[in-house]
Amino acid sequence: MAQLIADRRDIDFVLHEQLNVETLSREERFNEFGKKTVDLIVSEARNLAIKEMLPLQKPSDAGCRFDNGLVKVPEGFHRVMAAYNDGEWLAMTDDPEWGGQGMPKTVAMAANEYFYGACNSFMLYNLLTHGAAKLVENFGTREQKELHLEKMLSGKWAGTMLLTEPEAGSDLACITTTARDNGDGTYSLTGNKIFISGGEQDLTENIVHPVLARLEDAPPGIKGISLFLVTKYRLKEDGTPGEFNHVVCTGIEEKMGLHGSATCSLELGGKGQCTGTLLGEKNKGMAAMFLMMNEARQMVGLQGQANASASYMYALDYARQRIQSKKLTAPAGSAPASIINHPDVKRQLLMMKAWVDGMRSLVYYTGLCHDREAIATDEAEKHSYATLLEVLTPIVKGYITDRAFDVCNHGVQIYGGYGFIEEFPVSQLLRDSRIFMLYEGTNGIQSMDLVGRKLGMDKGKPFIHFLAQVEKTLAAAKQVPGLIPMAESMERFLAGYAEVAHEISQRAAAGKVMEVFAFSHPFLEVTGDLTMAWMLLWRATVAYPKLGKTKKDDGFYHGQVRTARFFINNILPITTGRLNAIKQGDAVAAEMEDAWFGGK
Amino acid sequence: MAQLIADRRDIDFVLHEQLNVETLSREERFNEFGKKTVDLIVSEARNLAIKEMLPLQKPSDAGCRFDNGLVKVPEGFHRVMAAYNDGEWLAMTDDPEWGGQGMPKTVAMAANEYFYGACNSFMLYNLLTHGAAKLVENFGTREQKELHLEKMLSGKWAGTMLLTEPEAGSDLACITTTARDNGDGTYSLTGNKIFISGGEQDLTENIVHPVLARLEDAPPGIKGISLFLVTKYRLKEDGTPGEFNHVVCTGIEEKMGLHGSATCSLELGGKGQCTGTLLGEKNKGMAAMFLMMNEARQMVGLQGQANASASYMYALDYARQRIQSKKLTAPAGSAPASIINHPDVKRQLLMMKAWVDGMRSLVYYTGLCHDREAIATDEAEKHSYATLLEVLTPIVKGYITDRAFDVCNHGVQIYGGYGFIEEFPVSQLLRDSRIFMLYEGTNGIQSMDLVGRKLGMDKGKPFIHFLAQVEKTLAAAKQVPGLIPMAESMERFLAGYAEVAHEISQRAAAGKVMEVFAFSHPFLEVTGDLTMAWMLLWRATVAYPKLGKTKKDDGFYHGQVRTARFFINNILPITTGRLNAIKQGDAVAAEMEDAWFGGK
Repeated sequence: MAQLIADRRDIDFVLHEQLNVETLSREERFNEFGKKTVDLIVSEARNLAIKEMLPLQKPSDAGCRFDNGLVKVPEGFHRVMAAYNDGEWLAMTDDPEWGGQGMPKTVAMAANEYFYGACNSFMLYNLLTHGAAKLVENFGTREQKELHLEKMLSGKWAGTMLLTEPEAGSDLACITTTARDNGDGTYSLTGNKIFISGGEQDLTENIVHPVLARLEDAPPGIKGISLFLVTKYRLKEDGTPGEFNHVVCTGIEEKMGLHGSATCSLELGGKGQCTGTLLGEKNKGMAAMFLMMNEARQMVGLQGQANASASYMYALDYARQRIQSKKLTAPAGSAPASIINHPDVKRQLLMMKAWVDGMRSLVYYTGLCHDREAIATDEAEKHSYATLLEVLTPIVKGYITDRAFDVCNHGVQIYGGYGFIEEFPVSQLLRDSRIFMLYEGTNGIQSMDLVGRKLGMDKGKPFIHFLAQVEKTLAAAKQVPGLIPMAESMERFLAGYAEVAHEISQRAAAGKVMEVFAFSHPFLEVTGDLTMAWMLLWRATVAYPKLGKTKKDDGFYHGQVRTARFFINNILPITTGRLNAIKQGDAVAAEMEDAWFGGK
Repeated sequence: MAQLIADRRDIDFVLHEQLNVETLSREERFNEFGKKTVDLIVSEARNLAIKEMLPLQKPSDAGCRFDNGLVKVPEGFHRVMAAYNDGEWLAMTDDPEWGGQGMPKTVAMAANEYFYGACNSFMLYNLLTHGAAKLVENFGTREQKELHLEKMLSGKWAGTMLLTEPEAGSDLACITTTARDNGDGTYSLTGNKIFISGGEQDLTENIVHPVLARLEDAPPGIKGISLFLVTKYRLKEDGTPGEFNHVVCTGIEEKMGLHGSATCSLELGGKGQCTGTLLGEKNKGMAAMFLMMNEARQMVGLQGQANASASYMYALDYARQRIQSKKLTAPAGSAPASIINHPDVKRQLLMMKAWVDGMRSLVYYTGLCHDREAIATDEAEKHSYATLLEVLTPIVKGYITDRAFDVCNHGVQIYGGYGFIEEFPVSQLLRDSRIFMLYEGTNGIQSMDLVGRKLGMDKGKPFIHFLAQVEKTLAAAKQVPGLIPMAESMERFLAGYAEVAHEISQRAAAGKVMEVFAFSHPFLEVTGDLTMAWMLLWRATVAYPKLGKTKKDDGFYHGQVRTARFFINNILPITTGRLNAIKQGDAVAAEMEDAWFGGK
């Protein structure tokens, strides 16, 4: 039977054969999560996703309703949210002290791939709640934690992130929302926020809003921003929701996709007092937010990966069903064949598979780095995982979401004219996935983060550590005779890549800032391609020795080896071309004067 | 003031400085179309587009209404259609005998760029009408022409194309609609057609449907398909519409975009007799349809180009207005600047500009080839233009529409989060432009047409003629000292390209059909990039000698030279990488077996 959302065999391959997730259970922290438990968790998640969440996807496209300050989420969301909360899925990876399950993040990635691939707009409410809860956990006082944390992690209350304002998008330094000290430990907030996912909804009994705002005496710019905790309903003495706190929803956006997620404009304290408490230190709001932003960015990468996987599953199934034109190699007059037999369809499916597989490995690997960081007893080892994650985050967010959109685009193309009509699921996946390139920092911002911060961080050590991981896989591949040509191609590429990375650092050191950033996004693209090649070669290294060993899995393992070969022989030459352009370094874009663009 | 839809200065540059369209007026056929007249036509088209059509775009997104077999187009379409018909815009290029204006196609491309860029879904009704009229003109009897042609070319009646059926999309050989000979010169048609743009509407008093169907005694497959002319209302003795002809609209599609264009399912002769006449020869329907398909495919390329241009104009204007973050080179604490100052935004705008400019030149050049073919007195010259158009058509349709979608995608990205919400125009342009990659033959089909038919056509002569045109521009560029490095880079690329084209022909000759077509789309991409580089270098060759000559246009000419340099130094290296992958020729996709794709 055709798989929906994600290829279970491939998920198991990544968890057990590539990443050996069960080795984590040797550590006390994760000792409940042996192979059987992991498989059970993935199966449960898959069931919930396919049976409950997937049926929400199409109706969610009709959107939320806004009426007089209130938002109604699509029908069915309430029922499925209850099931999701019953299963305690929101707090999979969290501290048992606050009701979490303490699961490895690697495993949670697999569960979340099913959930986000089934209905991303539904899951967005949970993503925001979890992010807000982590802010409370990391920066809250004991009292703040006790008031909010269990209610959030159980899904009883939701959470959001109030960052963006009309004039403060990529540049949060321009935030104007203000907080006045009431002298009693509370603050009165005033301001307008936009693009707030789940800023208002009828799913939960309360909503917890972490808000970026300025104290009245704060210094200008980014160093004068503090973080506040504001709830939709003020909390009574007993901690239950009381009177309305004047966080007023003034409207929701009409969007290209992700309609089931209400994107709200919020007015704080416009028509009555809106009070909150300080979360963390005064004027340190941005640092707190950025700590959480990393997790959020990784999860946006997962969203892209999950949507791309869903699109691939649909397109693959369609290509197997749809009969059109005879096989090219069949004699004239032969009966038409399923389109999976046609070479340009095969090429597109293989491109989709290469990216979906590579992205899945990368996303789960990111989870594994978190888990390894968490259990590391050696400080240096802990630090090395933490900094590796710093390097990987802009790749996961910026590169995966670019490619996820491309994969969803191929999904539409394989459906032909049917791809453009809303009767089939691939159009919605394409529209939904467009936002991933924009929110939590546009992909332009991600590329600047990679080149401007991560490349040169700590004298380049984290970046060199990242390349060392790639080299480990290369060394392993070179031990497998059938993979040597691929490994050597990739080795040549890696040498060229390292040279260009060094060249960019030198340009940056020479102060050629415009020239460097004119190539930041191309550099993100080649870095992402390198990461994909790494993941796919790693897969091939695991799969190759198993070829011909089992009848059941032989096709699967052949697929692994061929996908790596496709990427290394058909895609990496293109990446090399892009690398050459960066190396040549003619920064025309940086030179461009306003008038030269025309249009006036 | 910011330009809307298209950059008029650039349109004038292509018409007058690059293509010298006024030289056409030396020929009798076009002697009314001197520079002044051409400029007037473009200005009139621009006025109509901006004042009347552009205001339709946003409301058209709400779509058509379907009720009990009837389709209502969006409000406003009727009024603007009247204005469009008053201006006789549909028949710009047609024969004065049937009410046409006999204008050069080159000029019509400029007018149409404004129209399609303003509201594509509105213009689609006209595109289909024009295509159907050309079928009647080319294949109709005198009586058929007299009955239909003037009414269609004046816009009084509309036209469509009834090709696709549920089981016959890319593969029209599977068509099952049948035509029974009534013995009186008429035929009774029975069958179901889908995806019929404008198949039913309330804009015109009649609709003329050219229908692909099989005669009862027709041979199987593609050689048994005939073309019939069916009208929505049968024609009375006096040629006016009479009783309903049982072309029943059974529904319209919910689509990703282009909502103002009704995409209809039609049932012919299901509940009453549907009669038509044979158009052209029995069993020769496909040949007739393909002749028209070429024009339609070129116009789809124009649609992509026009949408991309509109998105660029919006994004450029937005980037000039939107203030966010200080200039990278400004001291800390400097005021935020408009985002056009930021290098990654510049890079994206320059990519958009490179493609929009290159595509505009290519589309108009295609028009010029038609015009030169029309006025050529020498048969060999006429033939050389006709076959050059054969080579260019899959590039115009397949490559331009792929890149147009990319350009519209950048347009969304430059708007940041605002790009995803429907308040701004760039989301709709992205959604609308997705169909161009699918209709009139998917871009996969276009790539197979290029590699399978056009590359080897007539012993490769048309293809060699195409490359000879590129070489002419190269030779001219090498006469301009400042352009020599660019020209030499491109010359090296061209040599490598020609080698790969030859290599592919040899693989094809050796019967490696799967291997060849596994690279057909990559080959279309490199061919398209070559064509862009050609067009942009040609522009630079015209612009370079004018640098520093006029204050008013100096920025414009600098833009031309820099855009060519950007494409040749930053994009063509990537193309070279893709070319290397094709050359290496590891056709992994062709090898892929069904099971290796997973998902079962």
